[in-house]
Amino acid sequence: MIKTGIVGATGYGGAELVRLLLGHPDVQLTAISSVSFEGMPFDEVYPSYAGLCSLPCLKQQDVVDQCDVVFAALPHGLSQDLAQDCHDKAKVFIDLGADFRLDSEEEYKTWYNGTFKNKELHEQAVYGLPELFRESIQNQKVIANPGCYPTAVALALAPAVREGLVEFSGIIADCKSGVTGAGRSPSATTHYPNLNESFSAYKIASHRHTPEMQQTLSHMANGEPVSLTFVPHLLPINRGILATCYARLRDGVSMEQVRKAYGEFYDGEFFVRLLPEGKCADVKNVRCSNFCDLSLFVDPRANSLIAVSAIDNMVKGAAGQAIQNMNLAFGLPETQGLILVPPAF
Amino acid sequence: MIKTGIVGATGYGGAELVRLLLGHPDVQLTAISSVSFEGMPFDEVYPSYAGLCSLPCLKQQDVVDQCDVVFAALPHGLSQDLAQDCHDKAKVFIDLGADFRLDSEEEYKTWYNGTFKNKELHEQAVYGLPELFRESIQNQKVIANPGCYPTAVALALAPAVREGLVEFSGIIADCKSGVTGAGRSPSATTHYPNLNESFSAYKIASHRHTPEMQQTLSHMANGEPVSLTFVPHLLPINRGILATCYARLRDGVSMEQVRKAYGEFYDGEFFVRLLPEGKCADVKNVRCSNFCDLSLFVDPRANSLIAVSAIDNMVKGAAGQAIQNMNLAFGLPETQGLILVPPAF
Amino acid sequence: MIKTGIVGATGYGGAELVRLLLGHPDVQLTAISSVSFEGMPFDEVYPSYAGLCSLPCLKQQDVVDQCDVVFAALPHGLSQDLAQDCHDKAKVFIDLGADFRLDSEEEYKTWYNGTFKNKELHEQAVYGLPELFRESIQNQKVIANPGCYPTAVALALAPAVREGLVEFSGIIADCKSGVTGAGRSPSATTHYPNLNESFSAYKIASHRHTPEMQQTLSHMANGEPVSLTFVPHLLPINRGILATCYARLRDGVSMEQVRKAYGEFYDGEFFVRLLPEGKCADVKNVRCSNFCDLSLFVDPRANSLIAVSAIDNMVKGAAGQAIQNMNLAFGLPETQGLILVPPAF
Amino acid sequence: MIKTGIVGATGYGGAELVRLLLGHPDVQLTAISSVSFEGMPFDEVYPSYAGLCSLPCLKQQDVVDQCDVVFAALPHGLSQDLAQDCHDKAKVFIDLGADFRLDSEEEYKTWYNGTFKNKELHEQAVYGLPELFRESIQNQKVIANPGCYPTAVALALAPAVREGLVEFSGIIADCKSGVTGAGRSPSATTHYPNLNESFSAYKIASHRHTPEMQQTLSHMANGEPVSLTFVPHLLPINRGILATCYARLRDGVSMEQVRKAYGEFYDGEFFVRLLPEGKCADVKNVRCSNFCDLSLFVDPRANSLIAVSAIDNMVKGAAGQAIQNMNLAFGLPETQGLILVPPAF
Repeated sequence: MIKTGIVGATGYGGAELVRLLLGHPDVQLTAISSVSFEGMPFDEVYPSYAGLCSLPCLKQQDVVDQCDVVFAALPHGLSQDLAQDCHDKAKVFIDLGADFRLDSEEEYKTWYNGTFKNKELHEQAVYGLPELFRESIQNQKVIANPGCYPTAVALALAPAVREGLVEFSGIIADCKSGVTGAGRSPSATTHYPNLNESFSAYKIASHRHTPEMQQTLSHMANGEPVSLTFVPHLLPINRGILATCYARLRDGVSMEQVRKAYGEFYDGEFFVRLLPEGKCADVKNVRCSNFCDLSLFVDPRANSLIAVSAIDNMVKGAAGQAIQNMNLAFGLPETQGLILVPPAF
Repeated sequence: MIKTGIVGATGYGGAELVRLLLGHPDVQLTAISSVSFEGMPFDEVYPSYAGLCSLPCLKQQDVVDQCDVVFAALPHGLSQDLAQDCHDKAKVFIDLGADFRLDSEEEYKTWYNGTFKNKELHEQAVYGLPELFRESIQNQKVIANPGCYPTAVALALAPAVREGLVEFSGIIADCKSGVTGAGRSPSATTHYPNLNESFSAYKIASHRHTPEMQQTLSHMANGEPVSLTFVPHLLPINRGILATCYARLRDGVSMEQVRKAYGEFYDGEFFVRLLPEGKCADVKNVRCSNFCDLSLFVDPRANSLIAVSAIDNMVKGAAGQAIQNMNLAFGLPETQGLILVPPAF
Repeated sequence: MIKTGIVGATGYGGAELVRLLLGHPDVQLTAISSVSFEGMPFDEVYPSYAGLCSLPCLKQQDVVDQCDVVFAALPHGLSQDLAQDCHDKAKVFIDLGADFRLDSEEEYKTWYNGTFKNKELHEQAVYGLPELFRESIQNQKVIANPGCYPTAVALALAPAVREGLVEFSGIIADCKSGVTGAGRSPSATTHYPNLNESFSAYKIASHRHTPEMQQTLSHMANGEPVSLTFVPHLLPINRGILATCYARLRDGVSMEQVRKAYGEFYDGEFFVRLLPEGKCADVKNVRCSNFCDLSLFVDPRANSLIAVSAIDNMVKGAAGQAIQNMNLAFGLPETQGLILVPPAF
Repeated sequence: MIKTGIVGATGYGGAELVRLLLGHPDVQLTAISSVSFEGMPFDEVYPSYAGLCSLPCLKQQDVVDQCDVVFAALPHGLSQDLAQDCHDKAKVFIDLGADFRLDSEEEYKTWYNGTFKNKELHEQAVYGLPELFRESIQNQKVIANPGCYPTAVALALAPAVREGLVEFSGIIADCKSGVTGAGRSPSATTHYPNLNESFSAYKIASHRHTPEMQQTLSHMANGEPVSLTFVPHLLPINRGILATCYARLRDGVSMEQVRKAYGEFYDGEFFVRLLPEGKCADVKNVRCSNFCDLSLFVDPRANSLIAVSAIDNMVKGAAGQAIQNMNLAFGLPETQGLILVPPAF
């Protein structure tokens, strides 16, 4: 049994990791930490877990000491020292935060106002989006788990970019996310009467996930720059991201070519479900699961591709993908502990 | 007192007209009709109206005979004969359906599979979007009330197109609508457990409102064609449309120019509220009112305009705008009966 | 025009008062105050009111000085001094808080841990539930607006108690309220992901509205004590209270007698809608209105009355009833400004 | 591997059985049937199951022939013949419908307007509420799975009735259920705009689950009659039942006695979680799991017990309990396949 631990277990990403690790046959959830709830049993923080997980919330250091793999679900900026510590102690480190996602320190400075403390560590870190970068993740020790929006957008567009079916500029990612993406802290935005029966956009063309999306698509384009406008919206639902992505098709590209490219690209991928023609992805159908549903449309009048993907922001967009990365890092079957049936309702 | 009547009063558009006409100081709601509920008092169909409107549902003909103005809230295809009848009897006819919205019979054939029965009548009909075409609506007798999505999109983009600030191709309207847009008939799509906690797109790049949007924007462009990709999504809320519209800025156009153009275009318009910089429109803030909230953003990296508008699909997108048109047709103050305060929650 | 002012205008009760006062033909909304938002225009606090109310938030004293009637929407304990000040200056004072609701200082001490600063003022204060105590409210100067739950429960049970149709002990009020009852401050309870898709009870048999319910019903019983178990629940909706009230029928009381008693009791009451047999009240049908819908059932097996009432907690349960009281205090028609059509959806 | 089959697999109860059986380590989901979707793969009916269950919908007879245990999720009245057939072929039969729940044919006639076709078969059938009747279920062949409301109410009150802590008359069960209880067929009631932001009661003191509740509690009372008023309400959420149950405490019974009795009664029961004093059960905390959360309160003023239970109506109230019964029937560990972590959000 792999000894697993979570630093920042009482945030939403951490709580979802607890749920999934409890059901994973090859791991033991050994230790968890929380600054806000230190000393409190986990099921007092989340009463839904009563009878299932009453681990006490410890200190960060306890988690590192007791575990083989450390998942960090921390606000950005707090993972670098922890990663270093895990690295020094030969633990596997999987970061659900943003500190190791960007290759370029300059971009990191621009968007996160931070620096790379140890450039070598950043160079070792791999970007854990298995369907795109599987081989580079296997047996690695420092893994940056992708952001939720970037996962949905990258999976929606990667085959089209890889095969050069679309223009690399003028791409639009109009994304809509459930509220858990905003975390567990109450705020005016997440106050029920404010959000219920509401719908709006936020951080329009200025969200930190933008450079991460461009970086991944640029890797797909063999390094050519890919530029993209990203507008996130907040949905009055708990879970799920729908990414509606628009790109201009290159001259002469047909719907058939598009479907063929996507079919081949995702052939054999358990977690990506390419929907039959005419069906559109719906966040409902992936809820609580690690699936990414993907649907493809062409607007022949505008000659553009419309790729719509749906993920559960807390699973494929966070905790589930983190476990998928852990499976890869430890040489386990990639779907281990992750064959989760999305409830029909 | 103007005698007003509604044909198709028990659909959602009709029911909202009842609500608004009951509060209008210059009109009397005189007669209503309904095929499904003929003979039944209105407040048995909608118990929320008990004590306020117990008019019986009559036949269509009764409404025409008893009223000065006839609002039609019918499935498309059923308004042409009714319009003719009203015209022959010198009644004002305001159509909440699609039969008179498109100038081109060819487009109407393509998208609605119908014909213009009386071309002259179609030529007389005006498109009732007051903020764009006020003068052509005043004192008219046959008024086509715009679709809900086209209202939101046209108001979001009209000034940019009118002033030539954006390219006329490659425009994207990513729209999200509350469920009342789907009408009062239960279906699998609107079954609560299916829609609750769900989110998806539908009729992707194939919705009938597309040609209507293009037509209005083309009028704004002095007849130049404007092409647009329109993707509607269904929100798990009752009311409201948010239209997130993307257009490439023409070379050298700045945010300042954009804001100035919009400010001038909508100067003095009571129902269009241009939001302060940085604030985004939210369907919550226009609920149950005739307002259109409008917010403007520029993505400097992609050099594109992002205009986000919010309306209540049943008010500015249907019944409210219909009454605004009635006010214009009868020479009443345009805001009469329409100064509705959107509840804060 | 009556000059009206609101102390505590930026809480939910205050904001709803603004909405309703803006639509009242005989009043002017003259001044508002807010501790949290002093100096800010009201429509910056609530952007839905843009273009409709940009009054600045002043100090409490400004409101008293500028207005003929002062509505107070304050946390309990803060109204007594304000009431005194209004009284001294001969202003009408309508308190949406709890300070003047209880006749008994002892009960006030027990449930609110407070004292009556000026007993004479408390004796002058009247309890503003017009359908039960209309005559005592007319032309009064200090009016205690009832709590939301007590309004729903009192209207559901008053006729049965008045006519001695039910036992005065063992009454149960199982109530369910929308979230706006919890106010505008974000908290863990009202955090969207916590409340959405949830349902629970709170303050079980220990809510402060209990003595107020018992007091009103005891007045209906000519002073005999009435005892009642009150359990409130929190609904994942914005507005509305449904009160399901259970009482044992006295021997030999029939459904016919019950309906007759209620019919006579509420005869001519505009705001109480006694539903046809077999129909149950629904919070949806009273939303945003001052109505109380009331439905009656008998369980012949248990020989008990089940009275189910529905109100909008922010209107009949707060701001609407306050205006109804103002109308009575000033000799205006009682429904003035309050004929609000609940939207059908 | 036990071969399991579902008759009526495409209703909500059936679909939830599919979800849970797919995760059960000792069974194979072998065959499913559906009248409405015969011939269609299951994941076309419920796209959330794509990649997980594409079994075709067969005929009822195919399920019986191919399986060791047959779950029936049918409208009432349709199970008796099927049960007979399973019985004749020595299959285990677990009925999620109502045909075998009531002991008394007379009650069945009164409430369901049906007859017992084969009285012997009804005598063999056991009522599958494991926490109350475990021993009678083990190794049985015909099992009546309890109704959703009766499960919640029986678990809330059984210890109090068993120990004679409360009066056996005047009990009130005020229950609130999520919408999935109404099934998969769209109707006006479940039409999203009608149900969203609404709340009401239905079948007041006339719901068919009433005699089932009384029967179970009477068994707990060693056959003494127990009478109860049951009022169900419909919540605008997908899943969950909250049962708020009121009973008069017998003279001298204290809160301590109550808690002690419940603690002993449910000692060792994995699926019943007795909450700490002061905490109230919430449907959120049992969602998608087989737990019943149970909280106890006393109103000292009225001398009454208030027991509040929460279950997931589709799991402990249907499919989960059915599998719990299957585990008992086959001698498997009772929690096998049912240790489901309720998501924290």
